[in-house]
Amino acid sequence: MSPHDLGRIYRSEIEEQPAALERLLEHDAEIASIAAALQSRGPRLIRMVGHGSSDNAASYGVYAFGLLPHWTAMRDSITLTVHYDSPLDLSNSVAIGLSQSGRTPDVVEYLVRARRSGAFTIAITNDPASDLASAAEATIPLEAGSEQAVAATKTYTNTLAALVLLAAHLAGEGARIADGVRRAAEQMAESIPAFARDAEALALPFSYTGRMFVIGRGVEFATAREIALKLLETCRVAAEPLTATDLAHGPVAALDPLFPVWAIASPDATLPAVQEAAQRIRETGATVVASGTAAGAVQGVQYTLPVPAPDEPLLSPLLSVVPGQLFAGALARVRGLDPDAPHGLSKVTLAL
Amino acid sequence: MSPHDLGRIYRSEIEEQPAALERLLEHDAEIASIAAALQSRGPRLIRMVGHGSSDNAASYGVYAFGLLPHWTAMRDSITLTVHYDSPLDLSNSVAIGLSQSGRTPDVVEYLVRARRSGAFTIAITNDPASDLASAAEATIPLEAGSEQAVAATKTYTNTLAALVLLAAHLAGEGARIADGVRRAAEQMAESIPAFARDAEALALPFSYTGRMFVIGRGVEFATAREIALKLLETCRVAAEPLTATDLAHGPVAALDPLFPVWAIASPDATLPAVQEAAQRIRETGATVVASGTAAGAVQGVQYTLPVPAPDEPLLSPLLSVVPGQLFAGALARVRGLDPDAPHGLSKVTLAL
Repeated sequence: MSPHDLGRIYRSEIEEQPAALERLLEHDAEIASIAAALQSRGPRLIRMVGHGSSDNAASYGVYAFGLLPHWTAMRDSITLTVHYDSPLDLSNSVAIGLSQSGRTPDVVEYLVRARRSGAFTIAITNDPASDLASAAEATIPLEAGSEQAVAATKTYTNTLAALVLLAAHLAGEGARIADGVRRAAEQMAESIPAFARDAEALALPFSYTGRMFVIGRGVEFATAREIALKLLETCRVAAEPLTATDLAHGPVAALDPLFPVWAIASPDATLPAVQEAAQRIRETGATVVASGTAAGAVQGVQYTLPVPAPDEPLLSPLLSVVPGQLFAGALARVRGLDPDAPHGLSKVTLAL
Repeated sequence: MSPHDLGRIYRSEIEEQPAALERLLEHDAEIASIAAALQSRGPRLIRMVGHGSSDNAASYGVYAFGLLPHWTAMRDSITLTVHYDSPLDLSNSVAIGLSQSGRTPDVVEYLVRARRSGAFTIAITNDPASDLASAAEATIPLEAGSEQAVAATKTYTNTLAALVLLAAHLAGEGARIADGVRRAAEQMAESIPAFARDAEALALPFSYTGRMFVIGRGVEFATAREIALKLLETCRVAAEPLTATDLAHGPVAALDPLFPVWAIASPDATLPAVQEAAQRIRETGATVVASGTAAGAVQGVQYTLPVPAPDEPLLSPLLSVVPGQLFAGALARVRGLDPDAPHGLSKVTLAL
């Protein structure tokens, strides 16, 4: 395989993301009716379960539900319900199972048990004929189209969008947020060529990097988790996601000039924490890459990957993950690795 | 400083852990009365907040409250309440602030806001005269004694014990669990010399390790997080904690013979997931260290660090973290690093 072919599918799926978001938006009325059904049941706790990129998207859901309808949403423990069989009362909850394949065994089993216990159950999956969809009362189809690369991209961004649209309808702000997602899809399409050029330019100086931290806080913590996972699975970089504040509680001690940090900055109330973390990182001599819609507000960094601001700060993660996806692909190619088929992984994970 | 002095305080604080647990147990009646007050208020959602080792202990709290009184407990987002000022309804909740110093700014502010919003607030801190304790309606004093090493040890294990005792009293099982904690403290005291010998022997072959995964699931996920944090802050190893299942969803692709994995196995319903993960790790050629109370049940590993089983499987994390604490100290010394004062860290983190 020539180096140019490495990650061809992964790269084309990144480029399909704007179109995938448009397809999801065609289901906005269905999402609105699921929100209405959910409102009438009156739960006040949202429990999200998933693994890998789906779990990363759930980190975003915490903020989408917290900031729009002001509901508490959590990434629930699958182990407690499925493995330990603990009789928690889930009857006043919404359980959302997240799985692009709809076949992740313990996520399906969690939803089966949550429904039996009286929770309102929702599947968010790319396969509306899957076991997960059958187990749930309601399904939001991701409509990302077939995803062939093992490293998820368009199913991740469509999961973010599905969660924020559901949250928006619960808050009576469906139309405004749907418009924002549509506009973010356009901005993404316009920005991908520049993002790709920046990512290619950055890959070479990072070609020998063995470890990285990826930091974000609030709405962008999901982005930090997802970029770290892309670097782990496609580039074999030991990349760890941290909140900007948790970095200061210990991990900053591990940094040195060979241990760079990717920092995602948003123009919101978390910006001072990210700026303060960047200052502490610089004191260790570590290289800092600033990305996100407030990348320019992080001073004294070696590399800046700017991201256009969407209509709503809450929608920034739809855009800010894309430079990281592209960087992972470019870095993998520099290292002769294939992001379409990382060694030891299969697309559908049937692990316990 | 001679190599023998490196980490002298850290090591002595590890050895103080059994006595620290005994001191906490003297406050069992106070913990019982906090549980009674909490029962009478009737909340059904526990929100825990903390950073670093305190947040790791909160991961254990999810299982302590889930398995004993069958209450839902979550690691809540501080950002949503403190930074984004989102008006979540916390009135039907218990908010538990975890901070050994009691001075972590956003944890204190979270508790102030949670109390104003009607939550029952509890501080778990080593300083009952701290801002955190003043902000809370009730305080559980950790009684770990002064902790001087920057890397937390005895405040971590006492936080685990405080959470499980509170959970046990909520379930009407206070006496049984208090006995179990007392017995675990004895087992810890008996085992530390053997743990230390094993840790010293393991440090040399790992002296050039730059990155590691630490895996656990269920009750031992907290242990995985805490051991990874010790390795990051004291040894500058890029150590990432993962659940056994999340490892299979991507990160396994990063493994190779120079990227070892520390696996914590418990003799409970999560054991098959840990065994399956160990099998997949071995296929990559990576070195596996099996630890935990079911270490012997993980086949074909290069190193085994056995841990005695406590009376209750739920109490295993009190013991299984200790070999990891000692390994981090031994590895730091081999590398000429001082676990008492890792570079760039201070004991009280006042970051945003």
